[in-house]
Amino acid sequence: MEHELQVISEHRYLLGIDLGGTGSRAALTPFAHTLPDASALTEASTVRRLDGGRISVTAGGSTVIDVAEALIGDARRAWPDARIAAVGVGAAGVASLVDDPDAAATRLARAADAPAALAADAVTANLGALAGAPGAVVAVGTGAIALGTDLDRVWRRVGGWGHLYDDRGSGAWIGIRALQAAIETHDGIRQDAVALLALATERFGPVGAWPAHLYPRADRAGVLAGLAADVARLADSGDAVATAILDEAGARIAATLAAALDPGLPRVASFTGGVFASPVVDAAFRREFARLAPDADLRAAAGTPLDGALHLARRLATGALPRDRPPYLWLAD
Amino acid sequence: MEHELQVISEHRYLLGIDLGGTGSRAALTPFAHTLPDASALTEASTVRRLDGGRISVTAGGSTVIDVAEALIGDARRAWPDARIAAVGVGAAGVASLVDDPDAAATRLARAADAPAALAADAVTANLGALAGAPGAVVAVGTGAIALGTDLDRVWRRVGGWGHLYDDRGSGAWIGIRALQAAIETHDGIRQDAVALLALATERFGPVGAWPAHLYPRADRAGVLAGLAADVARLADSGDAVATAILDEAGARIAATLAAALDPGLPRVASFTGGVFASPVVDAAFRREFARLAPDADLRAAAGTPLDGALHLARRLATGALPRDRPPYLWLAD
Repeated sequence: MEHELQVISEHRYLLGIDLGGTGSRAALTPFAHTLPDASALTEASTVRRLDGGRISVTAGGSTVIDVAEALIGDARRAWPDARIAAVGVGAAGVASLVDDPDAAATRLARAADAPAALAADAVTANLGALAGAPGAVVAVGTGAIALGTDLDRVWRRVGGWGHLYDDRGSGAWIGIRALQAAIETHDGIRQDAVALLALATERFGPVGAWPAHLYPRADRAGVLAGLAADVARLADSGDAVATAILDEAGARIAATLAAALDPGLPRVASFTGGVFASPVVDAAFRREFARLAPDADLRAAAGTPLDGALHLARRLATGALPRDRPPYLWLAD
Repeated sequence: MEHELQVISEHRYLLGIDLGGTGSRAALTPFAHTLPDASALTEASTVRRLDGGRISVTAGGSTVIDVAEALIGDARRAWPDARIAAVGVGAAGVASLVDDPDAAATRLARAADAPAALAADAVTANLGALAGAPGAVVAVGTGAIALGTDLDRVWRRVGGWGHLYDDRGSGAWIGIRALQAAIETHDGIRQDAVALLALATERFGPVGAWPAHLYPRADRAGVLAGLAADVARLADSGDAVATAILDEAGARIAATLAAALDPGLPRVASFTGGVFASPVVDAAFRREFARLAPDADLRAAAGTPLDGALHLARRLATGALPRDRPPYLWLAD
């Protein structure tokens, strides 16, 4: 009996999907090879990967579920022999910009022909970075959100409300700060952001063309975040304005993470996102977090949000996700 | 001959149109009754007024010309006996978000069946506030833009690049600052913006509903600016966070205006916009402008941007606007 189950599960797969402002990714891994809370699942040689489209936000709402459905379809076509045991999906904006996440989870289950767990991106970031252990994780990409959770009783969210009035320290936030300094230099309000002005002009053309590059675009948060890597390079080369922006970004990310530490959870924290590749961001983040939460255990991320999506799929397949937990998690058969 | 011209002109009218993020306005005034550079044209008893729609920015660009065309149509239906001598239109985003302003001016001339002058809103604000005299004017509404000009050789623009990375001190800027403080208080990053959080919750519902109120909307700058009056009321009642936001708004507006003073123009400046009704904004603006440009003559506005649109129409009708001046002014017969 035990042997039979093993044989069956060797033919079944877990599908994980991670959807963000700058792109989307899918990973497929054999169910049987997936150890409980193994850390970086997507680094295993048995994992197959696919890239998908970028989310945009239009008058009709977010396209996140369309992108997820298309990526599931791509995965099934790419790997036609893989029987999917469960699909785990982490998506930016799912709680606030998807009309009916419950119905969306059902759509994803139908597309995968398997049970589906649809989660806020903060949930998959947490599962990936702490390898399933309870604690707080800040995920910084196009946006910035922290979640302290045990996936059961405690769900403490900070940030992640979008580029317009939140997401402190995120890629979009860095892009906005860079453009603010650049346009002020162009207009003669300040003189010091000459390099940022040159950078933005190289990217978007003369300043008169910038509004048309940004305001009408549904993926403007991603476009803004696209500047962040260049700002980081500028800081690495010693530019004072770029350095000041990234220093503040790191400090603000730390404040977001510290606010997600919950008295009901172990004081364990982690972080994930390309922005930490900047030494300026990383140093400012660690300095400020140590100041705000000197007793917390700050760990390097065990895995990525895509790993977290596979953890989510595994938990669903093993019956470890009993029920919906809006606005973080929706399940469908 | 002179007499004949007078008689004819008594039957002709000037149409002025002002288009912004929070709405649009049209004014019709008899040509003959319009004295050169009379200040507040729209306050005369001979003026008739109409209100129109709000501009929005979508993937197809700005709707500003559609709104202007509709308002011209409304005006012609409302006042069928008025022969229009010229139409002057001041519009936000015309330089950066309208594909072909030249073609747009032609569309407006056709709609009015009269020569049309299409100008950036900064131009009509300047004409209205300084009653046609050369100098610098800052116009603060949904956005914030300053222009130093003599409508001839000098065109010095500062700001007006939109809510995403510019428009310091504008209605949208104040709305964004208010939401930033509110969400940080909600998330436990800070504790002091309880009143702003209550205000935003009253307006948009619980914080989880805010993104859907803002991100998918093409008129989100106007929605954000809609918060500014409430923030001003909160400051009037003594709220420290609201007061700090408006104090910074006033100082930043002053910096924008000071940067628009041009060596080639008299050091004359003025300002226009509902935001100056706030005593906090007004005081901070005057204090900072006096610090930055102690020798400049800061005047109260002689008239509104809608007055400026009528000035523009009068100049066009009298041949005082010889040619296009992109990205500020486009003429069409």
